[in-house]
Amino acid sequence: MSKYEHIRQAAYEANMQLPKLGLVLFTFGNVSAVDRELGVFAIKPSGVPYVDLSPEKMVIVDFDSNIVEGTLRPSSDTKTHAVLYKHWEKIGGIVHTHSTYATAWAQAQRDVPIYGTTHADHNTVDIPCAPPMDDKMIEGNYEYETGFQIMNYLQEKGMSYEEVEMVLVGNHAPFTWGKTADKAVYNSAVLEEVARMAYLTEQIRSDVPRLKDSLIKKHFERKHGPNSYYGQ
Amino acid sequence: MSKYEHIRQAAYEANMQLPKLGLVLFTFGNVSAVDRELGVFAIKPSGVPYVDLSPEKMVIVDFDSNIVEGTLRPSSDTKTHAVLYKHWEKIGGIVHTHSTYATAWAQAQRDVPIYGTTHADHNTVDIPCAPPMDDKMIEGNYEYETGFQIMNYLQEKGMSYEEVEMVLVGNHAPFTWGKTADKAVYNSAVLEEVARMAYLTEQIRSDVPRLKDSLIKKHFERKHGPNSYYGQ
Amino acid sequence: MSKYEHIRQAAYEANMQLPKLGLVLFTFGNVSAVDRELGVFAIKPSGVPYVDLSPEKMVIVDFDSNIVEGTLRPSSDTKTHAVLYKHWEKIGGIVHTHSTYATAWAQAQRDVPIYGTTHADHNTVDIPCAPPMDDKMIEGNYEYETGFQIMNYLQEKGMSYEEVEMVLVGNHAPFTWGKTADKAVYNSAVLEEVARMAYLTEQIRSDVPRLKDSLIKKHFERKHGPNSYYGQ
Amino acid sequence: MSKYEHIRQAAYEANMQLPKLGLVLFTFGNVSAVDRELGVFAIKPSGVPYVDLSPEKMVIVDFDSNIVEGTLRPSSDTKTHAVLYKHWEKIGGIVHTHSTYATAWAQAQRDVPIYGTTHADHNTVDIPCAPPMDDKMIEGNYEYETGFQIMNYLQEKGMSYEEVEMVLVGNHAPFTWGKTADKAVYNSAVLEEVARMAYLTEQIRSDVPRLKDSLIKKHFERKHGPNSYYGQ
Repeated sequence: MSKYEHIRQAAYEANMQLPKLGLVLFTFGNVSAVDRELGVFAIKPSGVPYVDLSPEKMVIVDFDSNIVEGTLRPSSDTKTHAVLYKHWEKIGGIVHTHSTYATAWAQAQRDVPIYGTTHADHNTVDIPCAPPMDDKMIEGNYEYETGFQIMNYLQEKGMSYEEVEMVLVGNHAPFTWGKTADKAVYNSAVLEEVARMAYLTEQIRSDVPRLKDSLIKKHFERKHGPNSYYGQ
Repeated sequence: MSKYEHIRQAAYEANMQLPKLGLVLFTFGNVSAVDRELGVFAIKPSGVPYVDLSPEKMVIVDFDSNIVEGTLRPSSDTKTHAVLYKHWEKIGGIVHTHSTYATAWAQAQRDVPIYGTTHADHNTVDIPCAPPMDDKMIEGNYEYETGFQIMNYLQEKGMSYEEVEMVLVGNHAPFTWGKTADKAVYNSAVLEEVARMAYLTEQIRSDVPRLKDSLIKKHFERKHGPNSYYGQ
Repeated sequence: MSKYEHIRQAAYEANMQLPKLGLVLFTFGNVSAVDRELGVFAIKPSGVPYVDLSPEKMVIVDFDSNIVEGTLRPSSDTKTHAVLYKHWEKIGGIVHTHSTYATAWAQAQRDVPIYGTTHADHNTVDIPCAPPMDDKMIEGNYEYETGFQIMNYLQEKGMSYEEVEMVLVGNHAPFTWGKTADKAVYNSAVLEEVARMAYLTEQIRSDVPRLKDSLIKKHFERKHGPNSYYGQ
Repeated sequence: MSKYEHIRQAAYEANMQLPKLGLVLFTFGNVSAVDRELGVFAIKPSGVPYVDLSPEKMVIVDFDSNIVEGTLRPSSDTKTHAVLYKHWEKIGGIVHTHSTYATAWAQAQRDVPIYGTTHADHNTVDIPCAPPMDDKMIEGNYEYETGFQIMNYLQEKGMSYEEVEMVLVGNHAPFTWGKTADKAVYNSAVLEEVARMAYLTEQIRSDVPRLKDSLIKKHFERKHGPNSYYGQ
């Protein structure tokens, strides 16, 4: 049995959640799961339909994007995953999708404003939308640079990847992450729903104000931090 | 067998309706069912996925939010349920969800205007949206105060909880109630559909007028009151 | 065996199509099927969930709304069905729903403009929206008057019920009909989709023109009339 | 066994994908699959519900729209398929649907602007919307002329059918094609999703700019051309 079996299984199961949650059409998405001690992650093979996936088909890749084990070509977004794993030492899983509402906000190149407690339960800030890269970066090592674009934008905004586990890449689509691949998938579904609600909120009232600070603080602390009281 | 078995079962079955009706993502919702004689209610445990629920996992709580029986932590919204049961003596069940369209109206801090007979079949008034609480209440006993915010707003509007069985809490999401937990769930689904239709109606015609009084009266009386003739 | 078995069965099967086609929430809809020789129709009982329906539960009613056979109370909209059967001698089935998009147009009190061939395949005109009745009619024999409101509006518009098999009742919801109950259900689903497309079309382009006459004529004649060449 | 069995099977399977992908209501769509050596294609029979289809029911037609084998009447859009097969020698399958969002753009008579990488992964241009035909063409051999309207518009725009595999016909609905019937179905689903995202993007930001050239080029080349690195 391969020593990568556990991350293959974790990546497989997390990938299979994407179509169930309505977050992908065809193969427009991928999940990876990392093993920090081994310094590798398991990721979906490129362009393989979800119904044809199995744990064995996950590709094992190191943080410099070298294939360590596996016969299939890994996701075309592999370098973005590798960069984020290399620099963000506490994340255990990454998800990329083209989910409809989150992608529409990315195409509009707008942060998703925080309008309610559904958003505040998960983030204290507007969901950041990194601007499209400059043409040199796009023409160069594109997926590798995408990782840096994400990291640099969070840093510029003064946000920690441990607190903000989701981002839109302008003109492209969302990336989410978390301590596990499952949590990263959860974050993708939350982002999609929050993006949908924010869209509807603006349609219902064009001059809608952002959520006030006291509610942002209260709801985030209900679910997170030392005095949280949500869950078991 | 526990003397709370019947409300555990009622709360369980009502909770399981929420995902079937498309009203919740993950664990973003909860239902409770009360026993007035015993002075307790059964409520969903906090953060437990619907697929993992069973009647035994429901938590028994009294009207001062003390846990009476159960090993799991009850819903983080338990105090809101307790306050409403304590003061509204004729309700038998309460539902809280973050259903998409109702939540979008709550985020927009707007009452849902009565535009048609689907709405009038269930309410003679715009569905009220209570304003967000002031910061002191939010920072204090938040969920407990949410119950009072709901009650005070209905009172301010001159509405009876026996006639209006649904409310939006501004910036947050809907609460509904009813004589049974099942009826409260029914009201949540009706509210979501009415909220969706009102949104679409305003998109189709920006200057749409409210429903006229004669139609409001007629449709409500078809389903309610001494001369109702809907149902068996 | 009852001599009404065939219309009970037809009404039952047609009613069961409504939830499958996504046209009803809970019991917000009803279908009837007529026997012209016997002068009666079978209609859904009022307020009975679709999962609890059976052919035996359909109620047999004559064209003056008298119950002829059946132990349950018929749909609260029975008088509207009776009036239409009485005056429109060639229809075999009637459907009433509160389907989301059609109802939104009814609430907006707007005809659904003909914007494309999906619409023209079924109608050569904008789908008419009858204005709400005056208060006297509403306070009086409401469902009975609803039937006349529909008939009078079609007449006023110069439309034949044999050509236009669908209408919106302003502030209320759609009614459709056809030579059979099945065809009436088909028309309800078509109306809902056409209403949804028209809504989206106006969002995508606010000054969108109506479909031109040559396309209206061509598409309608493809499916209808002496030279139709659609279907088997 | 018929020498057309393979295209009957291919057309059948591709047709059955349409309802699964949510691209058709009732019978509002059709797929065909060609055999270039035999000079014929298999196409859905007209107006037959998808649940009643079988490979044997597919109709075999030549490029001049003559029925070669089959007892059922072929799709009313058969002449459009025949014209495209005759003139576009490298396509293997054609799909026509009235999918909701793509049809709404067609009704609005607008090209679908390229706003993001989901679009650029499949096309480097706005998805073209051919104008409605002039009245003479509509009154004449309508479906035959529809084929020429599509071809002429692509030519006028300087687009190759090998690069752009989808088009909207103004006031009508989408047509897509590809090297196989399966690929043509894939293109229909992609078009519907891209049309939906573009609609949402404009709602979220009314002055949204088109995608910049460097991103268009990068994403298209990831999936297509000599240096593509997507898929296996």
